[in-house]
Amino acid sequence: MLDQFEARLDGDFAPMGVETLRAALSPLLPPGGFVADVESLRAFESDGLAAYRSLPACVVMPETTDQVRAVMATCSKLKVPVVARGAGTGLSGGALPFPGCVLVSMAKFNRILSMDARSRTARVQPGVRNLAISEAAAPLGLFYAPDPSSQIACSIGGNVAENAGGVHCLKYGLTVHNILKLEVVTIEGDLLTIGSGALDAAGYDLMALMTGSEGLLGVVTEVLVKLVPLPEVAKVLMACFDEVETAAQAVADIMAAGIVPAGLEMMDGPALRAAEDFAHAGYPKSAAAILLCELDGVAADVEEEIARVTALLTRSGASEVRIARDEDERKRFWAGRKGAFPAVGRLAPDYYCIDGTIPRRSLPKVLTQIGELAEGHGLGVANVFHAGDGNLHPLILYDAGKPGDLEKAEALGGEILELCVAVGGSITGEHGVGREKINQMCSQYGDAERDAFFALKAAFDPDGLLNPGKAIPSLARCAEYGHMHVHAGQLPHPELERF
Amino acid sequence: MLDQFEARLDGDFAPMGVETLRAALSPLLPPGGFVADVESLRAFESDGLAAYRSLPACVVMPETTDQVRAVMATCSKLKVPVVARGAGTGLSGGALPFPGCVLVSMAKFNRILSMDARSRTARVQPGVRNLAISEAAAPLGLFYAPDPSSQIACSIGGNVAENAGGVHCLKYGLTVHNILKLEVVTIEGDLLTIGSGALDAAGYDLMALMTGSEGLLGVVTEVLVKLVPLPEVAKVLMACFDEVETAAQAVADIMAAGIVPAGLEMMDGPALRAAEDFAHAGYPKSAAAILLCELDGVAADVEEEIARVTALLTRSGASEVRIARDEDERKRFWAGRKGAFPAVGRLAPDYYCIDGTIPRRSLPKVLTQIGELAEGHGLGVANVFHAGDGNLHPLILYDAGKPGDLEKAEALGGEILELCVAVGGSITGEHGVGREKINQMCSQYGDAERDAFFALKAAFDPDGLLNPGKAIPSLARCAEYGHMHVHAGQLPHPELERF
Repeated sequence: MLDQFEARLDGDFAPMGVETLRAALSPLLPPGGFVADVESLRAFESDGLAAYRSLPACVVMPETTDQVRAVMATCSKLKVPVVARGAGTGLSGGALPFPGCVLVSMAKFNRILSMDARSRTARVQPGVRNLAISEAAAPLGLFYAPDPSSQIACSIGGNVAENAGGVHCLKYGLTVHNILKLEVVTIEGDLLTIGSGALDAAGYDLMALMTGSEGLLGVVTEVLVKLVPLPEVAKVLMACFDEVETAAQAVADIMAAGIVPAGLEMMDGPALRAAEDFAHAGYPKSAAAILLCELDGVAADVEEEIARVTALLTRSGASEVRIARDEDERKRFWAGRKGAFPAVGRLAPDYYCIDGTIPRRSLPKVLTQIGELAEGHGLGVANVFHAGDGNLHPLILYDAGKPGDLEKAEALGGEILELCVAVGGSITGEHGVGREKINQMCSQYGDAERDAFFALKAAFDPDGLLNPGKAIPSLARCAEYGHMHVHAGQLPHPELERF
Repeated sequence: MLDQFEARLDGDFAPMGVETLRAALSPLLPPGGFVADVESLRAFESDGLAAYRSLPACVVMPETTDQVRAVMATCSKLKVPVVARGAGTGLSGGALPFPGCVLVSMAKFNRILSMDARSRTARVQPGVRNLAISEAAAPLGLFYAPDPSSQIACSIGGNVAENAGGVHCLKYGLTVHNILKLEVVTIEGDLLTIGSGALDAAGYDLMALMTGSEGLLGVVTEVLVKLVPLPEVAKVLMACFDEVETAAQAVADIMAAGIVPAGLEMMDGPALRAAEDFAHAGYPKSAAAILLCELDGVAADVEEEIARVTALLTRSGASEVRIARDEDERKRFWAGRKGAFPAVGRLAPDYYCIDGTIPRRSLPKVLTQIGELAEGHGLGVANVFHAGDGNLHPLILYDAGKPGDLEKAEALGGEILELCVAVGGSITGEHGVGREKINQMCSQYGDAERDAFFALKAAFDPDGLLNPGKAIPSLARCAEYGHMHVHAGQLPHPELERF
């Protein structure tokens, strides 16, 4: 079974004519639910990792769970690969079509089914936008906590697939900590209901297993999310530092004091200067780094914590600590952070956003080493990240028009991720592995863990039809990668390869 | 594969002579590490679910991970069932020996390997007692948050196997939320390292999958736990109610206000009176129910929250709210709660502790219905539970010496769990399914979920050697249970059966 699965992971699927697929699938779908003209398919050729592109054989747009079940059962019988897609905002290529696959768009699953203020939950379809849940819950005094930067566009189904994070995850947890129950359709068309309406569920934790599984185990058709009370007040303060390492140490100091900010974000000099030029947030352009620390809750508690954090930051070596005077200034402080990615985009023709996680104690060391690695490649890096979580987002600056520059950026990205592994961290914080980091999975795990991943995949999807080529590398790939690794005497760069 | 696994789950293992096992296993173990005399085996014949007993073929006591690997690989080759055991304090029969199995005692894995104040983690062996971690962390100003009632005796490995909870889990989460990384030995003797030192890990979430898997997927040999700062102060208040339903509503009101107490516990009249007679905690014996609410954190925050909770409780209909005046009174309030189980043990010759979870909004309704169900069986029930979590612990009073009484207690227990399922909850909160609740798993899940459980089990343990007969019911069992269910016209009682 594993050998066959391995072969399939490497792309050994029989090509399937579009007319065969149309005949089999379009009767299962509503009018217009089967799309196969190349112009329309172009819209689906990549996700947020735009350097990787390929075309599906067709796109299907089911509107009901039964339609999803029928599509999956049929693809399973035909042995045609299936890739599910939410809003396509992912950054690791998780929704990148497998060449010739059936792409299942969940865009029509866009309804909030119910909202229960007493149990503080919302039952939503996977195509609902992340922010739309919080907007709908606001009149009840509630919100959905995980808030990826793309929250205005990304869908909750994609959030579940990638176990998405965001600024507020420091206090409120990742997606897996903010959902209670899932409905999932398997590749065979079975419907699984996993998790429960209560704090725990019996049996193996299929809900946690499905969350972050990047579309390799099933397609989510319904999500019961937790809602949390909107805080009475939220205050933000900005601390400025003359050294990046001092800022990183201050993060550790705040967390060590037992304070749990709603958000604790860091930007280094290049990032904060770009953000300031772009958003006029009021950041001091001479600083080497700034921290933004948000505290939320009941007014009296927040005042008390603001005072404690200010004292701590000053003791940790902040050259200046500024508390946003009013809601306008608070929004401005955040506007800079939220606009940091597009702002950095103005520093160079292209940028490549890396996502890795490290134990907080390694922050100062790793930041220094990222700078050294970048220098070695002759590339610039701007650092913007969820500091409290140890979740790094180095933005590598390059020029795709310059021959070899993309490859250098990718090589540097790979090295940064392997540095995360070396200090006991992970090659992903919130973006997932997808196609992007598949080689680094060979560094993160050994044979025993990989065997467990394969066996688990085979348990849910024995023919390897669901989102092939993503998240879990084949043995052949790791052998080859290990080979390159050893023999080149330096870290190899991930190839932009055909599947 | 599934058919074979099913057959094995139903007990189709070839009997294995003890001398064969001794010859194969004792060379792998330290002196005294292989035990097979019946007198010694008696100490392992049951866990905290003492009504179920059976003898293993032998007990092995490895001292190193390599020894565990060798034992597992050998048992896998011999196709002999393996049951791992921590401290044996579990309440659902998870560590109950499978007749003729090799019982792997992890008692010798009792060392705290390291403690890191900066990253707030401890690396511990699975046999370390839960409370020992907090005791060792106290000089660093830290503690390990999950605190099952058995924390003085239970081991962290068992906590992982059962995803244990406790009073503090309302604020700090279950075991799965308080661990970062596991080392696990598979039935084939492979060593898996899952999770990471950072907030997220790449690939399928094997750590969450392993947590709460009740010894069916592997044996934990090392745990990296999170530590949290000891709160500056902890205050507790007691609220008294004339109606159980009013108390249940007050719980919902506190949680709806966005307050997260460190603990929010409820006792009904029979439980609080028994506890008062036993521990002299200062509970008002005329009350229909009391709530104990602990708030912890920085002094000023706690004062503010105590005031808010007091106002809320009064508004919700509490007849009296008493704040513990000093540390002595706080400890007395908790001593009553912690002694509630043995205290209730004085009300009747025997009691049976049930563990189920419901959405908080259903608390008032479910409490009423539990009373009605108990009346139908002519049995008494005392309710003690983690109210904030919706985690119920009805204690059913019976007399094992009275023919038919145990069967009535078990029937009532089953009905209460099915009531939890009916309101959207779960048949377990923190005790696991084990052998105890295996029939109710047939109510909790349908065929599709059960198939997923089987496939997942087969991926890790194709021969079904690890802890057979627990947690996941066979298809035959559910068919039979469903059959009884339909034809008897009432809920069947779980049989105390031979495997």
